[in-house]
This record gives sequence, C-alpha cells and structure tokens, in this order.
Amino acid sequence: MSELPVLRLLPGRDRRVKAGHPWTFSNEIAMSAALRALPPGSPVRLEGDDGVKHGVWHFNPHSLIAGRVLDRNPEVVPGANWYRRRLSEALKLRERLGVPRFCRLVHAEADGLPGLIVDRFDDVIALQANTAGMEAATPLIVDALQELLSPRAIVARNDASVRALEGLELHSGLLHGTEARARVEEGGIAFEVDLLSGQKTGWFFDQRENRARVAGIAQGATMLDAFCHTGGFGLLAAKAGAAQVTLLDRSQPALDLAMASAASNGLGDRVTAQRGEALETLERMVGARKVFDVVVADPPAFAKSRKDIPAALRAYQRLARLCAQLVAPGGYLFIASCSHHAAPAEFAEAVAQGVWRARREARLLASTGAGPDHPVHPLLPESAYLKAQLLQLG
Amino acid sequence: MSELPVLRLLPGRDRRVKAGHPWTFSNEIAMSAALRALPPGSPVRLEGDDGVKHGVWHFNPHSLIAGRVLDRNPEVVPGANWYRRRLSEALKLRERLGVPRFCRLVHAEADGLPGLIVDRFDDVIALQANTAGMEAATPLIVDALQELLSPRAIVARNDASVRALEGLELHSGLLHGTEARARVEEGGIAFEVDLLSGQKTGWFFDQRENRARVAGIAQGATMLDAFCHTGGFGLLAAKAGAAQVTLLDRSQPALDLAMASAASNGLGDRVTAQRGEALETLERMVGARKVFDVVVADPPAFAKSRKDIPAALRAYQRLARLCAQLVAPGGYLFIASCSHHAAPAEFAEAVAQGVWRARREARLLASTGAGPDHPVHPLLPESAYLKAQLLQLG
Repeated sequence: MSELPVLRLLPGRDRRVKAGHPWTFSNEIAMSAALRALPPGSPVRLEGDDGVKHGVWHFNPHSLIAGRVLDRNPEVVPGANWYRRRLSEALKLRERLGVPRFCRLVHAEADGLPGLIVDRFDDVIALQANTAGMEAATPLIVDALQELLSPRAIVARNDASVRALEGLELHSGLLHGTEARARVEEGGIAFEVDLLSGQKTGWFFDQRENRARVAGIAQGATMLDAFCHTGGFGLLAAKAGAAQVTLLDRSQPALDLAMASAASNGLGDRVTAQRGEALETLERMVGARKVFDVVVADPPAFAKSRKDIPAALRAYQRLARLCAQLVAPGGYLFIASCSHHAAPAEFAEAVAQGVWRARREARLLASTGAGPDHPVHPLLPESAYLKAQLLQLG
Repeated sequence: MSELPVLRLLPGRDRRVKAGHPWTFSNEIAMSAALRALPPGSPVRLEGDDGVKHGVWHFNPHSLIAGRVLDRNPEVVPGANWYRRRLSEALKLRERLGVPRFCRLVHAEADGLPGLIVDRFDDVIALQANTAGMEAATPLIVDALQELLSPRAIVARNDASVRALEGLELHSGLLHGTEARARVEEGGIAFEVDLLSGQKTGWFFDQRENRARVAGIAQGATMLDAFCHTGGFGLLAAKAGAAQVTLLDRSQPALDLAMASAASNGLGDRVTAQRGEALETLERMVGARKVFDVVVADPPAFAKSRKDIPAALRAYQRLARLCAQLVAPGGYLFIASCSHHAAPAEFAEAVAQGVWRARREARLLASTGAGPDHPVHPLLPESAYLKAQLLQLG
C-alpha cells in the first residue's frame, strides 16, 4: 500500500463518490489539521467512513472541489510512470480516432487527468493546469511529454480564471524550448498562432469538425463569419470554395491575424474583414437588408455563471433572430454556444424561437458538440460545454 | 386567394400556431358540421379568430393533431407543382450535403411535408404516408417522384402503427414498377433489402454516419453487434478491417440476410451469427467472461409511450452495464436509443450509470443522432428520436 496520506469521507457523505462521481466536495470530507497542512494538490488515498477504499485522488484543502480522482486503484503512486501511462493512453486514443496532430491531447477528467488541458500543435505543446494537483505535477507531465513526443516547445497557459478557485496564481511562459510561436494546419490551410498571447491555448480545436461541416456546404457561397476570432470558419470555407467571406470581430489584432492567414494561403481576394461589435453590426446589416448564403455565429460564452442563464438565453435568441434575418432563402445558419451553464435543450429552444421570430422555416441538420479529442466524463455531462446547430432556412 | 375551405382557430387558442408550431390540435380549432364533413387530409386555409392568416394546412377532423402546416403562404395551392417543388428542395439539400443516393429523401415536418417519409435506394423509392393528408396526396407525390428521379419502382410501406391515429388502414404494395427488391450500398459493401417485408422502410438510414464512425475504430478489433438486425454495424466494421464480428439478433430471417450479405461481400470468414434474445445472451456472455474490443447495442425502442419511460431507462441502464462488462480494457461501446420518449439527457444518464455499475471508467467520445438526411423541425425537438453514444472504456 502506498505511503500516501489518507483522506476520509464523512459518515453518510459517500453517496456521490460511490456513484462514480470524479469529484468530492469539501463538505463531504473529514478535515483535520494534518490534512489542512498538506500542500495543495497532494495525492491522497480516499477512504469511506466504512473503510471502503476509493483510490488515489488529488486533494486541495482550500478548494470547494476538495478531491479529484486520479485512479480507482488505491495501490498506485501517481509518479512519472503513472503520468506517462495516462498521457500515452490519451495519445493512442487520438491516433486510433484519426484525430490530426493539431488537436486537444488531454481533456481533463475525461482523460483521467483532472484539471489538465493539453493542446498539441504538432511539435509544440500548450498546457493548462487548472488545479493545484496538476500545478504540482507539471514537472512530471513536462518530462512525460518530452519522452512521448519530443516537442520543440512546451508552453504553460496558466491564465484561466478558474485557477483562482484553486488558489493558484495566473501566469504563462515557456516550460521547454525557446519559441512559443506555432502553426495549425487544418482543412488544407495553415494558421500562425502565438501560444503566449492568443485566446485560451491559442486555437479552438473544439470546432474543428464543425468548421469542416460548414466548409462542406460553402462551395460558391457568400458567407458571414461573426465573432470570427482569427477566422477559422471563414478561411476554411474560403479554401473549400466560398465565393466571398466577410469576417466580423471586435478585435483588430484577431482580424489582422485572420487577414494575414488569408493572404498567406492565397485567399486574400475572397475574404474581407469588418471590425465591430457583432450584435450591433448584425443589427445594422439587417437594417441594410444584407444577405449571405451561409451565416456563422460562434460567440464567446454569454453565460459566465448560473445566474446569467436567463439573460444569456435571451441573447442567444436575439443572435439567432438577427442571423436568420441575414440568411438567404435556402441558405444555412451555423450557431454555437460555449456556455457551460446553458443546457443543450435550452440553447436549442432559444435558437428555434429566434429563427421563428425572424419568420423563417428551418430544418435542423445537425446538433453537435466538440470533436472526439474533447471527450466528456459521462458523470460530468455539464463539461460538454460546446453546443452547436446547423440549420437550413427556407 | 385559393378556394380552399377556411379552418378557424378558437378565440385565445392561437398561441401555439403563432409561436411557429407546425401542428394545431383538435381543441384549438372551431369545428363545424361542414368541416367535419371534409375528407380527412383535405388542405385548408388556417386563420386566427383575429383574422390573421396562418397559411395552408392539412386538416384531419378525426385526429388529435387536427392540422399540420404545409405552407405559411395562404395563397398557395398544394397541387402537383407544390409537391414537386418541396421534393426537389429535399433532393437538392441532400445533394448539397453530400448525402449518398441511398438515404432518407424526405423526413416529414422538417422537410415541409408533414407526415411523409421517403427513403431512396438509388432507383427504388419507399414511401410512408403517416397522415390522411399525405395519404390523399400520394398520387401527386408519386407523379412528382417519377418526374424528378425516374425510379425503377416506388413502394408504399403504409404499415406504421401511427397511421391508426389518423384513421388510416395499414397496407403495403407497389405504387409503380414491378419489383420491390432493392440494394443499399454503404461503406463499400452492398446489402439486399426487400422493401415489402423488411423492418420500417427496409433499411435504417438514420445510423449511416454512426456505422461509419464505429467502422472507423474497428480495424483489427473483435466486435459484438447486438440487436444487429440485418448486420449493418457488424458488416461495415468487418469491411473496415475488424478481425472477428459476432452478430446477435432474435430473428433468424434477419441473421440469414446478414450472413448472405457477409458472404456476397467476401466477409463470411470473419462474421458469425448467434441467434438469441439480446439481453439474456449478453447476460450469459458476461457469465462466461467473454470480451470484445468493440460492442454495439442498437436495440428497438424500449419506450413505446410516455408511461414506459422509467422502465425503459432502467432497461437502457442494464443494457449499458452488460455491454460495458463485455468491453475489453481500452475498448469501445456504442449504444443507441430510438425511443422518441426518452430525452437525450435521460438516456445519457442511464448509460453513464450502467457503465459505472460495471465499474468501468469511461470517456464519452461522441453523442450523436441521425444524419443530416433526417433533419429535425426546430419546434418539434422530440422528433429527434435517435440518440447514440460512443464511449471508450478504461
């Protein structure tokens, strides 16, 4: 039996853990001075009041989510070998699924590495350690990644606000190598990304399959890519044969990056950038009776917390209405939500009502989420944050 | 203005129609002797008590769903041209989406043809008219299909039990041509189908993309295809390189058809058939400690009505548990529900709990439904009957 400290569940508070949930909360555990003194993120063995062994967990005495399961086997020691095995499983799964080398390599709990995000840009890796446990394990993870993939660089993107809940500071920087610039190849084109200054870990891999889906209907089409960020949807559609793509975003640096990618991929003549607040600009376009064969709206999360949900659903409805008004008869609307807090059925209803308020009949062609390189823990269904719909409008 | 009879909504009962719902119920309309005397399925103009014109609808005075919208434009006459236009739009959409010529060509309300199902087997067409309106319009639909596609045969499969709700008899037969046998080409292999005696319209096109997804991970794998019907999942996996596939079904004729397809596609040496009740057979396999790299379970609907839901969810949980116990470490489980009445989140929870009861950690890789040739009306989300999950088990 490993020498790890033992964390005990309170009497009658083991229901969640026994039901397979990968977390335990601070009000479920028997706290002690010794436990409170453990460095945040220490591995512990979790046991029930009844002596049942629940495996090895990461423990943070200062977080509401006090424990996160690493391994149901109470005998393991989560050292270098353990991390290498988990990372290797994640890598093999992606290979088996035919996921490209530009992908999410580790998606936290679902990959058995709670709180850890690893994005792969072929030979450059971006890490996000969102828990004290993964922060403490980062040297082991960096070693394992070097052994498995020999990357040119590994970048820490530890600037997600969720780290505050774990008492972690926000910081970014190189963990290995000398250069944080990388490229993404997708749909036959290449994008430059800066892993130290871009949004999230630099690229939204979660929409890869949706970008391909939209590109698949874009042949000969005019297209509006609202909230375009660095232009993933629009440029892939242009590459797939869209006649004319309008990129819309509030960020000039994002648009500059998008237009640079358009130019370097020989698409500059079919892509134009428009800077503006998306909702206001859409409203003006509706007023000017503009239409596009394909409209894409992939906004940042409207609901940042549970209390935002009603306002967020109204905003999704308004967005769907505005976009629907801009779609040509027989054209297509792709609309997404990355709000953790909006349930799939609620988002779908908001979109349906928005489309009807635009007095458009619609066919829902696909309800999708992130691709298989973003697996979901079955008992954390709310972690399936990305919801998207592709509709054809009559 | 067309000479169609006018159907009027009762005062204060127009909320559903004004919210864009494609149906109106018998308790929402002002019935009269003249209306009651109309042949079931007559086209009518629907108007509100406030005089608002809601377009042209199919009317059945003897059905709980009294009206189904055909066109929001009150001026149209749903004659030969109207049906040809709707069918042509459905065809063009599938072409645009890259859907093969073996597909669902019309998916009822979402394709603007309420109650009508059209499946296409290249040059043979199977029709299901599930409403009195579509029953009455069948001659127009047959003419339009002949004009658009010049099929070798058109088969009526009007034996769905839902027809009873519309007061329609059950019958099947050839509407055009002399031969109801057809073939399906999918995933590089061909299946013979008998459109007059097979389940539903002869082939489950709704799982086409899911069959491809499973085949994509089947290389070198052993596989169990439970509730295999005519072997779609198993044979496509064998074609894609599965080492050994076991087909399991209660129906000997279905297994015979599957094994004939296996033989004619040169897959007979890697496919075996086992006849038995699936749940009992799975239980026995668990007892015998059998394992497979990939397990597929695609059962018929466990919930035939709303009151069956709790029992159905328990059955899905049990099915998921048994299947999970049969999956090799690191292997895959694909499980589906075609129960209209089980909501996606409920089905997902049943699967998650079943998998956990087998004490298996899991990654949910994809939550899917039917392909884009089965569009959904956004305001009839419950018509997205097919729910499927692909998981990897640790």
